[in-house]
Amino acid sequence: MSGSVLITTDLLSQSDVSRIAQVAKVYTMQQLEKEPDSILPQVDVLIIGRWPKSLDIKKMTSLKMVQSLFAGVDMLPFKEIPGSVIICSNAGAYSYEVAEHAVALMLAAAHAICISGSSDKFTMDEFSELTKISRTIYGKTAGIIGYGGIGKAFQSFLKGFNMKFLAYVRKMQTENSEVTMLQGRDGLESLLQQSDVILLSIPLTKRTKGMIGKDQLNIMKEDAIIVNVARGDIVDAKSMAEHLKKHPSFIYASDVGWRIDNKEIGNPQGLFTGLKNYVTTPHIAGLLSSSTGRPSAYAADNVIRFLSGKEPLNKVDREEY
Amino acid sequence: MSGSVLITTDLLSQSDVSRIAQVAKVYTMQQLEKEPDSILPQVDVLIIGRWPKSLDIKKMTSLKMVQSLFAGVDMLPFKEIPGSVIICSNAGAYSYEVAEHAVALMLAAAHAICISGSSDKFTMDEFSELTKISRTIYGKTAGIIGYGGIGKAFQSFLKGFNMKFLAYVRKMQTENSEVTMLQGRDGLESLLQQSDVILLSIPLTKRTKGMIGKDQLNIMKEDAIIVNVARGDIVDAKSMAEHLKKHPSFIYASDVGWRIDNKEIGNPQGLFTGLKNYVTTPHIAGLLSSSTGRPSAYAADNVIRFLSGKEPLNKVDREEY
Repeated sequence: MSGSVLITTDLLSQSDVSRIAQVAKVYTMQQLEKEPDSILPQVDVLIIGRWPKSLDIKKMTSLKMVQSLFAGVDMLPFKEIPGSVIICSNAGAYSYEVAEHAVALMLAAAHAICISGSSDKFTMDEFSELTKISRTIYGKTAGIIGYGGIGKAFQSFLKGFNMKFLAYVRKMQTENSEVTMLQGRDGLESLLQQSDVILLSIPLTKRTKGMIGKDQLNIMKEDAIIVNVARGDIVDAKSMAEHLKKHPSFIYASDVGWRIDNKEIGNPQGLFTGLKNYVTTPHIAGLLSSSTGRPSAYAADNVIRFLSGKEPLNKVDREEY
Repeated sequence: MSGSVLITTDLLSQSDVSRIAQVAKVYTMQQLEKEPDSILPQVDVLIIGRWPKSLDIKKMTSLKMVQSLFAGVDMLPFKEIPGSVIICSNAGAYSYEVAEHAVALMLAAAHAICISGSSDKFTMDEFSELTKISRTIYGKTAGIIGYGGIGKAFQSFLKGFNMKFLAYVRKMQTENSEVTMLQGRDGLESLLQQSDVILLSIPLTKRTKGMIGKDQLNIMKEDAIIVNVARGDIVDAKSMAEHLKKHPSFIYASDVGWRIDNKEIGNPQGLFTGLKNYVTTPHIAGLLSSSTGRPSAYAADNVIRFLSGKEPLNKVDREEY
């Protein structure tokens, strides 16, 4: 099969656009603006970054596939996209860089890198406060919630740290004997209780929204670290802020904020103001990946695979969103 | 041999003091204050943290050994200590924790963890500035200057990062095939030219003071990272500040400041004010080690070894200071 592809994002590199143009007719947003009524009904494949608000999907009567440039697809308007359309995420394209960012967040938080004073204030006076935060990771237990590309890369980066690994999974995976797989409600509880570090690397879906709330935090170790490189809304913001206030040795280190009014917010309602045990970066892990060109190449490969009649990768189970 | 031990630091744990008291007469600073003239001439072994200013070493006519609780002994008054006295550092006692701190500094700096905005300012606006700083470490080349306990632990922690390792050494070491040993002036140059990350984990001595100056910085990669967990004065402060200003992608990440008027200073003469490519912690790596009890136990072990007539470890070559 060949067909027509509408590219609505500038995250696709010029060379990847050219590769797609060799097997399909390519339309850009500029072209679409001029002749929407003739182009929209022709489009077989839609490639998107952020969902373009102006896009009139009802007119896309030939649409067969939506390819996201992002790994997470929780922000797509699922209800508006007809059920017959295949939706593909870009899972895997960001795994190495996001996993390395997770290790960086974990170690920076554990070693109090950002809170232990500026160069102007080079003093050991605050050591008693520092001792609440600073700790080593070597030999500790890591629990990985969502054991996909990011979770596996996180584990492999930490090979030199002599850690014990637990993974919360939906389907048992047998290829890796260095990790203990846990399933179901009991499995999750067991992981939360045993882990010194917990990585959230699971998609945001109906099931996972708010999955880390008061009850989960309360069974964790008092000085655990949660590292979130997935989505803020997997964690209940209010419960987390309260928990951090009560437990000064508990750390939340996150590259992702909460989604409020279509914006990503690091400190909703000022809940986290002044909390030294909250370390955050403004969703920058993806930036590292984009510079590799991999997200663009992965997405283009998948579209070309689909256009040539093969089964695309990363098909999203729409019922979960 | 048994004898008398004067303990001038409270960094030795009570149980380690008791172990020493089983094989020697132990004096504390409190006891010394009462009867300095009778105690000082008896002391065979002196255990120190910071050098006690009030100590009249001229009266210590039996002194045979000085044991430091710190790994670095550059702050000792070498000229005042008679040449016949053995001086022992506490090298090795801090290796794992300091090496993990070095990895944390490196990754926090590389991933722009501390500079990419607070939780209140969760924005991607500064991405163009971030791209100058943020980069991944996976697969890159690390140069280790001073390949002792810390350097080796640093390398072993990074096992999962698929890196190439170079080490600048004075004596060739053959036990490790995963690192390329380099020697002499040419070896150092070659390491500086090839490395993406450079770890300074070498003692501060006459030879190493200012060893990283303008000439060395200028042959390094424009976007290299120097991680310093040794002593600030190994780096020439003025040259470093100028280099950081000229090269916004070059990073200096340090747990140690410059020694000025017997104080450790993170930002001498305000040279580094406003530089986002300078990441520092106020000499906190040792804090992590102290909590393990290892520095105290190592020092006590070494004193007991000496008192029982064995050769002590970590004998300092006084000519280097």
